[in-house]
Amino acid sequence: MIGTGFMGAAHSQGWRTAHRFFDLPATPVMSVLVGRNPETTLGAAQTWGWEETSTDWRATIAREDIDIVDIVTPGDSHAEIAIAALAAGKHVLCEKPLANTVEEAAAMASAADAAQTRGASSMVGFTYRRVPAATLARELVLAGRIGEIRQVRAAYRQDWLSDPEGPMTWRLDKARAGSGALGDIGAHAIDLAEFITGLRIGAVSGVLDTIVKERPLLAEGVGLGGTAAADRGTVTVDDVALFTARFEAPAGGYSPLGSFEATRFASGRKNALTIEVSGSLGAIAFDLERLNELQFHDATLPATEQGFRTILVTEPGHPYAAWWPAGHMLGYEHGFSHQVVDLIRGIVDGAPIHPSFTDGLHVQRVLDAVERSSNEDGRFCAVDVRPDTPRHGN
Amino acid sequence: MIGTGFMGAAHSQGWRTAHRFFDLPATPVMSVLVGRNPETTLGAAQTWGWEETSTDWRATIAREDIDIVDIVTPGDSHAEIAIAALAAGKHVLCEKPLANTVEEAAAMASAADAAQTRGASSMVGFTYRRVPAATLARELVLAGRIGEIRQVRAAYRQDWLSDPEGPMTWRLDKARAGSGALGDIGAHAIDLAEFITGLRIGAVSGVLDTIVKERPLLAEGVGLGGTAAADRGTVTVDDVALFTARFEAPAGGYSPLGSFEATRFASGRKNALTIEVSGSLGAIAFDLERLNELQFHDATLPATEQGFRTILVTEPGHPYAAWWPAGHMLGYEHGFSHQVVDLIRGIVDGAPIHPSFTDGLHVQRVLDAVERSSNEDGRFCAVDVRPDTPRHGN
Amino acid sequence: MIGTGFMGAAHSQGWRTAHRFFDLPATPVMSVLVGRNPETTLGAAQTWGWEETSTDWRATIAREDIDIVDIVTPGDSHAEIAIAALAAGKHVLCEKPLANTVEEAAAMASAADAAQTRGASSMVGFTYRRVPAATLARELVLAGRIGEIRQVRAAYRQDWLSDPEGPMTWRLDKARAGSGALGDIGAHAIDLAEFITGLRIGAVSGVLDTIVKERPLLAEGVGLGGTAAADRGTVTVDDVALFTARFEAPAGGYSPLGSFEATRFASGRKNALTIEVSGSLGAIAFDLERLNELQFHDATLPATEQGFRTILVTEPGHPYAAWWPAGHMLGYEHGFSHQVVDLIRGIVDGAPIHPSFTDGLHVQRVLDAVERSSNEDGRFCAVDVRPDTPRHGN
Amino acid sequence: MIGTGFMGAAHSQGWRTAHRFFDLPATPVMSVLVGRNPETTLGAAQTWGWEETSTDWRATIAREDIDIVDIVTPGDSHAEIAIAALAAGKHVLCEKPLANTVEEAAAMASAADAAQTRGASSMVGFTYRRVPAATLARELVLAGRIGEIRQVRAAYRQDWLSDPEGPMTWRLDKARAGSGALGDIGAHAIDLAEFITGLRIGAVSGVLDTIVKERPLLAEGVGLGGTAAADRGTVTVDDVALFTARFEAPAGGYSPLGSFEATRFASGRKNALTIEVSGSLGAIAFDLERLNELQFHDATLPATEQGFRTILVTEPGHPYAAWWPAGHMLGYEHGFSHQVVDLIRGIVDGAPIHPSFTDGLHVQRVLDAVERSSNEDGRFCAVDVRPDTPRHGN
Repeated sequence: MIGTGFMGAAHSQGWRTAHRFFDLPATPVMSVLVGRNPETTLGAAQTWGWEETSTDWRATIAREDIDIVDIVTPGDSHAEIAIAALAAGKHVLCEKPLANTVEEAAAMASAADAAQTRGASSMVGFTYRRVPAATLARELVLAGRIGEIRQVRAAYRQDWLSDPEGPMTWRLDKARAGSGALGDIGAHAIDLAEFITGLRIGAVSGVLDTIVKERPLLAEGVGLGGTAAADRGTVTVDDVALFTARFEAPAGGYSPLGSFEATRFASGRKNALTIEVSGSLGAIAFDLERLNELQFHDATLPATEQGFRTILVTEPGHPYAAWWPAGHMLGYEHGFSHQVVDLIRGIVDGAPIHPSFTDGLHVQRVLDAVERSSNEDGRFCAVDVRPDTPRHGN
Repeated sequence: MIGTGFMGAAHSQGWRTAHRFFDLPATPVMSVLVGRNPETTLGAAQTWGWEETSTDWRATIAREDIDIVDIVTPGDSHAEIAIAALAAGKHVLCEKPLANTVEEAAAMASAADAAQTRGASSMVGFTYRRVPAATLARELVLAGRIGEIRQVRAAYRQDWLSDPEGPMTWRLDKARAGSGALGDIGAHAIDLAEFITGLRIGAVSGVLDTIVKERPLLAEGVGLGGTAAADRGTVTVDDVALFTARFEAPAGGYSPLGSFEATRFASGRKNALTIEVSGSLGAIAFDLERLNELQFHDATLPATEQGFRTILVTEPGHPYAAWWPAGHMLGYEHGFSHQVVDLIRGIVDGAPIHPSFTDGLHVQRVLDAVERSSNEDGRFCAVDVRPDTPRHGN
Repeated sequence: MIGTGFMGAAHSQGWRTAHRFFDLPATPVMSVLVGRNPETTLGAAQTWGWEETSTDWRATIAREDIDIVDIVTPGDSHAEIAIAALAAGKHVLCEKPLANTVEEAAAMASAADAAQTRGASSMVGFTYRRVPAATLARELVLAGRIGEIRQVRAAYRQDWLSDPEGPMTWRLDKARAGSGALGDIGAHAIDLAEFITGLRIGAVSGVLDTIVKERPLLAEGVGLGGTAAADRGTVTVDDVALFTARFEAPAGGYSPLGSFEATRFASGRKNALTIEVSGSLGAIAFDLERLNELQFHDATLPATEQGFRTILVTEPGHPYAAWWPAGHMLGYEHGFSHQVVDLIRGIVDGAPIHPSFTDGLHVQRVLDAVERSSNEDGRFCAVDVRPDTPRHGN
Repeated sequence: MIGTGFMGAAHSQGWRTAHRFFDLPATPVMSVLVGRNPETTLGAAQTWGWEETSTDWRATIAREDIDIVDIVTPGDSHAEIAIAALAAGKHVLCEKPLANTVEEAAAMASAADAAQTRGASSMVGFTYRRVPAATLARELVLAGRIGEIRQVRAAYRQDWLSDPEGPMTWRLDKARAGSGALGDIGAHAIDLAEFITGLRIGAVSGVLDTIVKERPLLAEGVGLGGTAAADRGTVTVDDVALFTARFEAPAGGYSPLGSFEATRFASGRKNALTIEVSGSLGAIAFDLERLNELQFHDATLPATEQGFRTILVTEPGHPYAAWWPAGHMLGYEHGFSHQVVDLIRGIVDGAPIHPSFTDGLHVQRVLDAVERSSNEDGRFCAVDVRPDTPRHGN
């Protein structure tokens, strides 16, 4: 695994835990943790359970005893590492966003397609797909239980920037972070909406905005935030993104509209990735803050008995039900184990793995189209899909 | 009262009931009900409790013993009746939408302003402002309890058109209804957002869509729907409207964005007029399907004790708390009594009454701007506000 | 109507309103309001819409133009008035509790049975049965939708006595109120549980307690409470009642247990009359604080799709659906109109009316058994049902 | 660790994970897993991550390199193993119930007290105390935030026995399981109520019942249930337990009542361990099915702003906040890591550890008193507390 940040902890938990609860065709070995700072990396490796450390990712991916490369570095280094790892014949798991630019993401998707023909698999880390309730939502939708899709509402709302005196961090600097709320959390909303509906977004009309334009500089980092210095700096990323999407129609069907929101200023909403999909025969609704629950409305029942029902997604027969008896709740981290399960099974079976780099590229293109639309006063902009791009996955 | 439809029943309930629970400076007398069909009108008058009936609204508004004219006819007749009634020196309550066109609404607002100088008051019937929880939301927001407003989310979602075989009604014919979901229910979301925030919408970027484009013609009307005939007709109004609004900034402040949705295809949502306002110090959230409750998040409390709290808005000290002891719930119809209370008190006191015709005109202008934006591919369109229009109210 | 207190306002709203929304075989005329104080009674009559007033209930019930006597006086006068009215051939609606003692209630039930043979109907005012969601709950249960009943949980929780410095009122004096939380609100929980399940309680094990044993005397009454005087008095009624009930088994079936709670010290619960009934095939749950909603769990659905669903009980086809379009909420007071509807229909049709005085008597007997059990250290006590008492109703 | 059942998996997850997220003064080594069947035990050890296996618990606890003995066997073997392990100078973690009889539990508590003086710590595994929201509830209550405690409502409701054709398992056989719903899940409700309130239960009035008295014999076990054989057997444990508890008063204070329910027949409730504590200044409410949330009502706020607020217990500053950023949810299993954290810290610090064996003994005594009361027709029975029993802990 390359990278030692917060995502490193989450991925490590997945690698450590998946085979303790799921029957896997191969058991992962947590061999090498790669980081820039040798001491930090060593400490992280001990905490997280990696056998060795290295500061040289190129040397590590060249090792013959390495089968899988898991990339959890910042987005600007994803393309170089992933393409090199795929070229070295490794299977690659790359944390989202796939890259900071569409060009890099496209190069990665091409490399992944080429590598697949040589037996090297790849996956991008949109783990919220693997919350059991989200997977169940997709299953119900694709089984036709809500009929033809008429509308989608998706939002990812947090509030950790609400305080205008919260200091600048690298996440608020476009040069380093690439994007703000849109790319960081809006990307999850886009991927989840496409996953659950099975539809691609074809065009978007949107607006980005920076609510607090100046903040104190960072004196010392603490968690996602830190302490404030006396001087002030300029926030160069978006605090909020609002956009309307037109999904591509299924064969012979309707192209539904979707509303999307990504914000870090929704006071009181801590991690509210929410989605509601309305169809001709019912609806589903999900909220990451209550991640063990799926709301399902079946409009084929008698009118006097209809209503959203709260399914506790912990029953035998539910997706990823290998953990505990029914009614025993899962948490945020379990998606990272599910990710490992699906990756290893896919590698061993040689089956298609989702979300593919092409899926990740598509999300980047949607993000790019939102930015273009925002720059063009909200005009609908098509999501640029090169005709030669493979469309599998999702 | 002029008009005998569903809104006639609701307004009558307000007129019959308000003085039974509130101390009013004058007691309304339900004198004349005006309708086109004498028999229908007589039946309605008996059911609702009106003393007399008439088929001649002009004669009725000319009567000296009439002080207040309540207009609950379809929107295309509002302007003519309201302007005539104001000219006759009557106080006028006009059901929303104020009119079917901006031009008519502007004429009505001018007439109302002129009449006000002669002591004739006017009010437009956005009764959802008068749900106690909505009024409490405004009170908290205007008292600064959520700080500076950063974002607004408003939606009005119903599902009574979900069935594609539901027949055409006049509400789906643009020539008669003027507008679809946008004007019918989106107008409520706009008014409620402006009421609670105290801010005007200055520009919008939106899209309208018709999901089911052809429906069976109506054989016989039943309720809001009816039975289907063999032939089919074309739906000419919007089924769904999605738009992003830029509110005007308060003095020296930020211009927040708002997302808006109006739809009749949200399967399982029966009457979900929802709004959430996020501020720098907290947030409020409201849902008409749980109209006795207001969600309030106070971000000035210690971080470990924060959370949305559910205020049951039935306590002494809450708005319109004249009905029953604390904890005894109110329903949809109570807003119509509150409307009567505020109208009569305003008339007797000579105090400004909200929402004014100017408020209603503003909502029409927002609707108009959304339609323009939708016709211009989603481009942001300014809400056209003539500089000479009075801006009081709200 | 005899009585001018809070219940008078609620009953008046029902009498004034029912025929405005429901087709009734006879239209009620609000003729005489009877009270002790002529001025107070006149004021109430004007506020509530009664044509005449009187201070002599005996003279009033003797009038030939009076068909129905509605008794909303304190419980200690119910028996005398009701028995006299029934003897005079009047139909009688009597507010709950039917009486302050089992003996009086038994006399009333006998009088009602005798009067019924002469064509005079009677009803006791447990209006929460007539919340549409509660009626729907009964319909689902009696239709077998939750299978055999296994358990019942019922509670009525309020918090208006939480403050130990809240002053004494007559409601806290056993000599005047007869009972505390048990009789005042526990009676509703008992009736609702028996109504929804269709089962009678046969035995109870319970405990009563007075949490705050001394309070300031009342200086001046305000609402249900008032201002405090310097001296203190002793609370002689129960503040909280907890009991376990054994229901009588349906033919060939199981005798389910039920847990009951009545309290005025549940801080934050304003009017939480809640009930959950668990069966072999599902469950229903209701909360008066969200009175438009019924929770229904259907355990015959596939296990992966089960969950409590929230039915908004405002659809056509739902009980008492004569008010507004689907999704438009009802409130506390609507039950009083439904009571009038069922009473008048029952009188005109000569059909059995529920809840009968026998139902009311049974509730009194359950209350009595709870008190006895509390006095006997919680031992199960049988609900004393004389074999000669008619068991119809419910 | 001794035992290889479901609790073995949960405890192993705790031992494997705690030091990955928490700073511990000592890092646990998962050395020996002891079970009866060598092959099953070896398989479990590999799955769960134990270094060695053994079939001889006596030999294992005699090993010098073993510091902590974790007992997750059925309740009838707890006493023998725990007392031996304490005698051997080991620290002991014992899964609940502490024992199947009060006598055994008392012997264990005495042994634990004696061992403590020699430096050997002990803890009983009521992990739900260590759900962060439950710990926060205790903190708020003990800090006086809800004032004097007036009432407690606790319930543990599951539904996995609802189907009368579900087969017999050892859990339904009193000879093997000792108790039914009362001991299995009611024990959790008792412990949680005593933990959150800081009060002991002094007397109880209760009833036990077996709803389905005969079931098909078990053909083959699957999960908690299994497939049915043709013959039928008799259920000898309780399916449901309802009881009322009188808590002991705090110094100079009130002895509050509590209502308790334990059932496996609450159709639709999967794992609903719920508790609400009402006080003179507010209330808290918790539901294990939404374990990341705590409901808190602060009655010292202005009356018009009061309501239960939903605290998402994932903020820095909340109990056990070492896992993920705010808003990232925890699940069932995290309590087992928290248990390891507190045990190891307690051992190293030599500080009192809760819940102590004395706490576990007390829960057994409450269970015993409920059974006695049920056998005595619901009469209140004192919880038998020998005066010489240490009362520390909790």
